[in-house]
Amino acid sequence: MSPLSLAGLGHDPYQPTSADRFSFGLWTVGWQGRDPFGDAVRPALDPVEAVHRLAEIGAYGVTFHDDDLIPFGSEPAARDKHVTRFRDALDSTGLVVPMATTNLFSHPVFKDGGFTANNRDIRRYALAKVMRNIDLAAELGARTYVLWGGREGAESDAAKDIRTALDRYKEAVDILCDYLLSSGYDMRLALEPKPNEPRGDLLLPTIGHVIAFIDRLEHPDMVGVNPGVGHEQMAGMNVVHGIAQALWSGKLFHIDLNGRHGARRDQDLRFGAGDVKRAFFLVDLLETGGYTGPRHFDVRPPRTEDMTGVWESAAGCMRNYRILRAKAAAFRADPEVAYAYAAARADQLALPTLGAGESLDDLRSHAFGRFDVRAAAAQGCGYERLDQLATEHLLGVR
Amino acid sequence: MSPLSLAGLGHDPYQPTSADRFSFGLWTVGWQGRDPFGDAVRPALDPVEAVHRLAEIGAYGVTFHDDDLIPFGSEPAARDKHVTRFRDALDSTGLVVPMATTNLFSHPVFKDGGFTANNRDIRRYALAKVMRNIDLAAELGARTYVLWGGREGAESDAAKDIRTALDRYKEAVDILCDYLLSSGYDMRLALEPKPNEPRGDLLLPTIGHVIAFIDRLEHPDMVGVNPGVGHEQMAGMNVVHGIAQALWSGKLFHIDLNGRHGARRDQDLRFGAGDVKRAFFLVDLLETGGYTGPRHFDVRPPRTEDMTGVWESAAGCMRNYRILRAKAAAFRADPEVAYAYAAARADQLALPTLGAGESLDDLRSHAFGRFDVRAAAAQGCGYERLDQLATEHLLGVR
Amino acid sequence: MSPLSLAGLGHDPYQPTSADRFSFGLWTVGWQGRDPFGDAVRPALDPVEAVHRLAEIGAYGVTFHDDDLIPFGSEPAARDKHVTRFRDALDSTGLVVPMATTNLFSHPVFKDGGFTANNRDIRRYALAKVMRNIDLAAELGARTYVLWGGREGAESDAAKDIRTALDRYKEAVDILCDYLLSSGYDMRLALEPKPNEPRGDLLLPTIGHVIAFIDRLEHPDMVGVNPGVGHEQMAGMNVVHGIAQALWSGKLFHIDLNGRHGARRDQDLRFGAGDVKRAFFLVDLLETGGYTGPRHFDVRPPRTEDMTGVWESAAGCMRNYRILRAKAAAFRADPEVAYAYAAARADQLALPTLGAGESLDDLRSHAFGRFDVRAAAAQGCGYERLDQLATEHLLGVR
Amino acid sequence: MSPLSLAGLGHDPYQPTSADRFSFGLWTVGWQGRDPFGDAVRPALDPVEAVHRLAEIGAYGVTFHDDDLIPFGSEPAARDKHVTRFRDALDSTGLVVPMATTNLFSHPVFKDGGFTANNRDIRRYALAKVMRNIDLAAELGARTYVLWGGREGAESDAAKDIRTALDRYKEAVDILCDYLLSSGYDMRLALEPKPNEPRGDLLLPTIGHVIAFIDRLEHPDMVGVNPGVGHEQMAGMNVVHGIAQALWSGKLFHIDLNGRHGARRDQDLRFGAGDVKRAFFLVDLLETGGYTGPRHFDVRPPRTEDMTGVWESAAGCMRNYRILRAKAAAFRADPEVAYAYAAARADQLALPTLGAGESLDDLRSHAFGRFDVRAAAAQGCGYERLDQLATEHLLGVR
Repeated sequence: MSPLSLAGLGHDPYQPTSADRFSFGLWTVGWQGRDPFGDAVRPALDPVEAVHRLAEIGAYGVTFHDDDLIPFGSEPAARDKHVTRFRDALDSTGLVVPMATTNLFSHPVFKDGGFTANNRDIRRYALAKVMRNIDLAAELGARTYVLWGGREGAESDAAKDIRTALDRYKEAVDILCDYLLSSGYDMRLALEPKPNEPRGDLLLPTIGHVIAFIDRLEHPDMVGVNPGVGHEQMAGMNVVHGIAQALWSGKLFHIDLNGRHGARRDQDLRFGAGDVKRAFFLVDLLETGGYTGPRHFDVRPPRTEDMTGVWESAAGCMRNYRILRAKAAAFRADPEVAYAYAAARADQLALPTLGAGESLDDLRSHAFGRFDVRAAAAQGCGYERLDQLATEHLLGVR
Repeated sequence: MSPLSLAGLGHDPYQPTSADRFSFGLWTVGWQGRDPFGDAVRPALDPVEAVHRLAEIGAYGVTFHDDDLIPFGSEPAARDKHVTRFRDALDSTGLVVPMATTNLFSHPVFKDGGFTANNRDIRRYALAKVMRNIDLAAELGARTYVLWGGREGAESDAAKDIRTALDRYKEAVDILCDYLLSSGYDMRLALEPKPNEPRGDLLLPTIGHVIAFIDRLEHPDMVGVNPGVGHEQMAGMNVVHGIAQALWSGKLFHIDLNGRHGARRDQDLRFGAGDVKRAFFLVDLLETGGYTGPRHFDVRPPRTEDMTGVWESAAGCMRNYRILRAKAAAFRADPEVAYAYAAARADQLALPTLGAGESLDDLRSHAFGRFDVRAAAAQGCGYERLDQLATEHLLGVR
Repeated sequence: MSPLSLAGLGHDPYQPTSADRFSFGLWTVGWQGRDPFGDAVRPALDPVEAVHRLAEIGAYGVTFHDDDLIPFGSEPAARDKHVTRFRDALDSTGLVVPMATTNLFSHPVFKDGGFTANNRDIRRYALAKVMRNIDLAAELGARTYVLWGGREGAESDAAKDIRTALDRYKEAVDILCDYLLSSGYDMRLALEPKPNEPRGDLLLPTIGHVIAFIDRLEHPDMVGVNPGVGHEQMAGMNVVHGIAQALWSGKLFHIDLNGRHGARRDQDLRFGAGDVKRAFFLVDLLETGGYTGPRHFDVRPPRTEDMTGVWESAAGCMRNYRILRAKAAAFRADPEVAYAYAAARADQLALPTLGAGESLDDLRSHAFGRFDVRAAAAQGCGYERLDQLATEHLLGVR
Repeated sequence: MSPLSLAGLGHDPYQPTSADRFSFGLWTVGWQGRDPFGDAVRPALDPVEAVHRLAEIGAYGVTFHDDDLIPFGSEPAARDKHVTRFRDALDSTGLVVPMATTNLFSHPVFKDGGFTANNRDIRRYALAKVMRNIDLAAELGARTYVLWGGREGAESDAAKDIRTALDRYKEAVDILCDYLLSSGYDMRLALEPKPNEPRGDLLLPTIGHVIAFIDRLEHPDMVGVNPGVGHEQMAGMNVVHGIAQALWSGKLFHIDLNGRHGARRDQDLRFGAGDVKRAFFLVDLLETGGYTGPRHFDVRPPRTEDMTGVWESAAGCMRNYRILRAKAAAFRADPEVAYAYAAARADQLALPTLGAGESLDDLRSHAFGRFDVRAAAAQGCGYERLDQLATEHLLGVR
């Protein structure tokens, strides 16, 4: 009698299909619940079982860190066996691998970073580990390869020369672009920002910092951003604004969807948990803003849950996305909303500020001449009405 | 018997000189203390008096918003009189105007923004207001013109289409670059990031977002960033990291120095107040990182102070900068610090990760071959020692 | 064609009535939009007009600071006139005054606090100002008198001896209790916590600190807490938890409802704006937790709004409360929710941990004896299901 | 050539002695560096070795969770062996055990809490586990027993009835007081607040909430607060204010000292790291405010460190405390500081606001009569000077 089973009676408008392009990391449903203060609460999840269960609940894709699939330090034979089993599961379920990534943060060797560790041999090892998994990702059909620098950072400002570290970071990403080109892989890189945790401060802390960094690479066109919803919110950022700027910059290559509450440790709650109104506007933006990639969930079902709870959590992510998508569409289609937008002069924002062929002198004399400052200042913007209309659509009372 | 007067007995190593290039905004020492819950506590400060007093306490420069100098809505004759008096004060004191900026946030007409207001006439008025003050800034010798979009933003995600707003923002900055070029002014623009306040969320919230935006302008070389120390800290960012990325990107055109505590409303405390250890590393970075612009203080002396307190606050900013500069130099010169950096392998970070002429295949086989993961993982980084040495230099006990 | 007017066609289930006990401060709908960076955007609102409009939109009560009603420094005759007009408006509309409070923060004399200013004469003046307005509050029938120490605090830890300041704070509240008793007023005091703003740090920053303070007063029974929803959220607190502890402590005497986003400057958004799911659980708690006081809205309609927007904002507060109240009731009545609570063993939490008549030795030997740690550890809590059910009730899809 | 060894040449004024009463938890120097994203980086530390090393570097005390000393689930014989070895180490070094506590957060059985788990059997097991370790603590001479409810909380507001949970929390602490009384132990309880982590939100989030809770217990005199410096700062609280209120309330029974940066995951940095000026004022308060308990460090040396770094980190905590203590004393003894305090009217804060024998009518007529509001409002408070003097003492330039 879960929500899903109840909803299953008759047609369920929120049941995911592969057309939704929902994907999950192996590390999400497979998270065992180890946290800074506690031990694992759930058994290890076999990647093959994960693939089958994800297919059953309606996902279309699965993603992974190398170590999620092949335990760190595996010998080649063991490695091949893990890959073969996984590929068989993909084949039998039809699940695809749209993205893969590298674990450069769990093993103690990466405690000072991968691409920006002071120890040059560690940096070389990190690069080699990424290239090896890019090979596997290509083999499995991934078109996006994510790089999250979870240990690239510092606890003390004395510890790391940031400009030199950025040199090394750039060198590493440039090398990986060269590797993709020389290997002939049809794959793009996506850098994932995060402000802090597990390091005291991380390099490339927000969407903005990542795009600015990409612009200075040798092959900027091959690299984009993989924003994590919760990561932006850890910095008190409006994630809708951030992702809008990523889209505006042509750099939204992938996305990690999840929920959280305020500025605190990384929570990775179920999508739709936390600030659901922001999630509503985020879905609205993704659906109308030209994003064509997977809707990827990067969640860690709370430690209070057993495996039943894990699967309910995963199903809830997809269900909430579909619910919000339907509501966002209804909001946009509501004539009263259109009327309120017109009243707020939203259409004028799309008009160039300078007239076609107009000179700056003309603009200036017009602005200081005929423009009635007082009258313009007295006009209300009507945003409270718009926000209330959005709220009522969200709550299902319109 | 103020700290200053006491310090004046004999040689004071922390007494500022014009070579320090310290500058203040008229709005800082002139802040009357109006806040969201309270009325003005201090009388208006005549800009001419501000110039004289700043010169006396050791500043080399003064900056201003148009409305700081010339009340909003002044007629041309009044305007000229304000400018003439100000110029006379500059001439008689030798103070320079390294930077100027525009107030696009106080008057109600800008309540929905200047460059990104929905109302097209308001956007045109904002542009005209900026161009008019650029003319004055050029006349007064300013080489940097700051743009802070204090009202470019929104309280509700329903209120503003962010991508369209960025189009208008870009149009405005492109127009201003054209204006600088066509006017033959030797001046660069510097955009100032801030995550929120006074709007619920502001566009271009951090250093990273600003640089990414600049990279998409028509004349990216003419535009840089003017980071506010407190603004980055409002987002929980490490401001030293952010400014290091700005320097690495060649985009640190100007800086607003001040102090604050944590993520809360904008405080603009005296430089050196709040987290003084971060201020120490920031001064270290500015002094060694190639920044050549003014050391500009954007502070608001607390509302508890009378004018005596205002001037002690301003003097304290400069004094603290000099104190920290001396300490940072001593830290860098300490042989034990050099030893600790060597022990932390800091020198290896400057070495390219890939050998000259080395192939990726070679790197890979080396990394997976001879590299001893376990041994590398066991090595400590020695950052606690470095941080403790920095702390002891800061506290003056080494 | 506002949401209200549309909703007015036919029966509107969310139309407020006086039975809802919704109240607003004069300073909310009357906020003119002055903020740290901007001037007033709206005209002053006559308190009489405020009363009439509040009555029209369905409020039952109005509250005020002394200075909202009677400008600071008014002579007795002017004072009487203001009061008479206000009382007439109350009489003609039927609006009541459930609460009043004192402005001890706007005038420069209070820049270092009212009850805890270093200057003893200022403290005396603050007390006198409160007593005078308590007389008026009593005359107008208020049963709750709120004390918000908006300037009791400091920017620097050097500035104020906190323990001595708490002595003075206690002295002031003790004096006011004596005044209530000696005056025979049927009125209770409610202290309002806030962590910071406008001071750098405020005394009595959270609900917890206020209750702990009250417990050390001479008449603790006469004093409770007036939590502000946004104030708790400024400190990253879960406001539902905080208000639950206030109820558990018998100290929830009044409440200030509003909305906000994360840890930033005080926003005082419309109730239901921001994190609407937390608002849902807050309404659920207020409705089921024994709170019997007014539902008081402490909001500041955004500066983008004209007076039409102000009234839509005020109406939206009440409407959202009613919407959430209906949803919370439906959530509690849903058999699937009851089933999920049972599955989560929620009923066991109400059982005493120690059995009736059981000794601690017995508990101990039982716990270390028959209790199967491993089996208990393996049980899931089912909270994801509960949270998803709540989400679906909130979104109106169940 | 560590700072310590260098400092050791000649008399070192910052070398700790047992008179300083510095203590460390076994879990601090013994932290192996497991975090949410990474595995252990350091070997397990034998408690016996920890005791010897702590004694060598100058600590006087050691504290522990039961599971730090005796692995979870040990049989009685193993248990006795662990205790005997530990006691021998204490005897041979002279180290004392001023405090002990219970691990109710690592094992999966506590994933929903100990005292407030829904499952009644888990609550009973938690109580038994605490009582068993209280016996050991008493045997080892501890006078304070700390209770940190690291898993008492929730991720969703649907998950837990907070008022009922507080009933169970109170029942548990009441039972433990009874146990102490019936056992004749000379021991007090100290509750440790924390706002969140590892749970989404924790019960009793701040110092204030803990004291308010204690006031409602059956034996409030037996229970105080154990504030964690970083825990208060996670909520953006001014920890100096919080601890001052705890002292004012007579409830500062113990303290956990450490450092951190802003609102983010729990960092537990070395004392003196992070905001060192706040640490300066905290030491000033502890030394002058009547706190007589141990100076207990609750730190986790960063994951980048090997065991050498761990011991440098621990030594740095004590060294920084002594440095700051000397500076705070010099600040208080500086005549210029005394002069600045007098100028700020700090002495007036200690005077009762109401005169001896004065009536409220007299106060009122005086305040509204002879008091010159305008003149009082014009006076500055002189706090910038005070703060600058404190800064200069901190930095060692006075």
